[in-house]
Amino acid sequence: MAKKPEVPMKTKFACCQMPLTADKETNINTAEKMIRAAAADGAGMVLLPEMYVCPYAGSDFLTAAEPADGPANTLMSKLAGELGITLFAGSIPELENGHIYNSCFVFGPDGRLLGRHRKVHLFDVAVKNGISFKESHVLTAGDSITVVETPFGPVGVAVCFDIRFPEQFRIMAEHGAKLAVLPAAFNMTTGPAHWELALRSRAVDNQLYIAACSSARDEKAKYAAWGHSCVIGPWGDRIAGLDEKPGMVSVEIDTRVVDTVREELPILSARRTDLYSVEEIK
Amino acid sequence: MAKKPEVPMKTKFACCQMPLTADKETNINTAEKMIRAAAADGAGMVLLPEMYVCPYAGSDFLTAAEPADGPANTLMSKLAGELGITLFAGSIPELENGHIYNSCFVFGPDGRLLGRHRKVHLFDVAVKNGISFKESHVLTAGDSITVVETPFGPVGVAVCFDIRFPEQFRIMAEHGAKLAVLPAAFNMTTGPAHWELALRSRAVDNQLYIAACSSARDEKAKYAAWGHSCVIGPWGDRIAGLDEKPGMVSVEIDTRVVDTVREELPILSARRTDLYSVEEIK
Repeated sequence: MAKKPEVPMKTKFACCQMPLTADKETNINTAEKMIRAAAADGAGMVLLPEMYVCPYAGSDFLTAAEPADGPANTLMSKLAGELGITLFAGSIPELENGHIYNSCFVFGPDGRLLGRHRKVHLFDVAVKNGISFKESHVLTAGDSITVVETPFGPVGVAVCFDIRFPEQFRIMAEHGAKLAVLPAAFNMTTGPAHWELALRSRAVDNQLYIAACSSARDEKAKYAAWGHSCVIGPWGDRIAGLDEKPGMVSVEIDTRVVDTVREELPILSARRTDLYSVEEIK
Repeated sequence: MAKKPEVPMKTKFACCQMPLTADKETNINTAEKMIRAAAADGAGMVLLPEMYVCPYAGSDFLTAAEPADGPANTLMSKLAGELGITLFAGSIPELENGHIYNSCFVFGPDGRLLGRHRKVHLFDVAVKNGISFKESHVLTAGDSITVVETPFGPVGVAVCFDIRFPEQFRIMAEHGAKLAVLPAAFNMTTGPAHWELALRSRAVDNQLYIAACSSARDEKAKYAAWGHSCVIGPWGDRIAGLDEKPGMVSVEIDTRVVDTVREELPILSARRTDLYSVEEIK
């Protein structure tokens, strides 16, 4: 009987906090450069920001949209295979049957597509004297919670506003995730208020790593990203991170740390599943 | 037809961060003094710490335990009625049929018992080089999630370690709570790491106020409380709070702030209840 291949416990995780321009080709070239730099630095897993191909605006989503097998993903698949990395390719405006989704594609070290998450919670907000945005004007929401099997074990995948919803991350943990990744682009209202809070609380509540990657801030853009890409440990501590400028987060993650935290401070196992449960509806 | 009495939108909320001693009577006298001071300062709702009658130790729980109609609650009921306040009487080791529960009793402005929460998640942890405690050696867990009808509307009640569990607070919000209260006693390991994080994330995820009351820190005690009693607003901001020393948090809360936050940043209403749900099991 074939022995089940062992899941490596440690890997180096990199978030590429890319600067974005109005030009899609320039952005894709930047992504390629940063992915190559991350791999050269020893990263086994690399994450790009939400909508890494274009500025964060409904009209730009329309212009930059492409199908799942379009040029952006074709390059990402090739890079993952060539560099032998697991690549969480941020998100792109994915065009299918006249709908545009905010989709994160995941490619394995052999270049194969491992999975896809379509953002399930669209960002429709109107804060007085703050941010206003209606993703649902242009985008269609996905219809499932995503845990992707990777060489590092099951990894939860969510996009930006999805981080607001504890149910989604609880379900990821229930599916065995010890890491969740989040391509994102918080803004100058919710970023300072809630970015790190949301990431840290999902991590500590579910006792897993969270890696979150934003684009760098463009002060002149209509939608200025908060930046602050980071990796949070299962104890809720920010183990590595950036400010708003372009750069790379690169840090070792180790599932044995997850196991230790879950043992010492039993939260997942102390849930009163006789009193409540989080149900995934399929 | 009698008109339904209107729920006041605003009230002043006070947390009494009491110093505790080994003497139960002294502690109860301290509680009385602080409750009277809070009411004199205009508080309409007052909260005491977890296990306000004794030090935080299994042996002290056994010594201080009393039934629901014991001397501590008798005084609390009298004080609530005399002062015309809603009193969340921290928690006591409640003795019933040979079991001891970690119970928060709530008394209305007429002195009547409005409800009771028995801590549902017992604190059983063993952090290496940090806190070790096994509540379950002495205590029995409650078996329901608690939302109490008060003159200020429905209020969620939880005790200390309960704050770790997002499901419990989601269910409170689903029952209409715009405020949740937490008698607590975090420690010197989990306090600096998670106290404010947990309170703020429950508040912002469910877009409600959280009032959390600890005892003051006794550096000489075996279990030194973290203190830092505070009130968190529905935007996740700490609107008032203390350090570790004895004192009073006192701040106006206003359910219209909850309504505004829920409208501007629709989190509760944006939940994908077609993809997941939190079920309360009764």
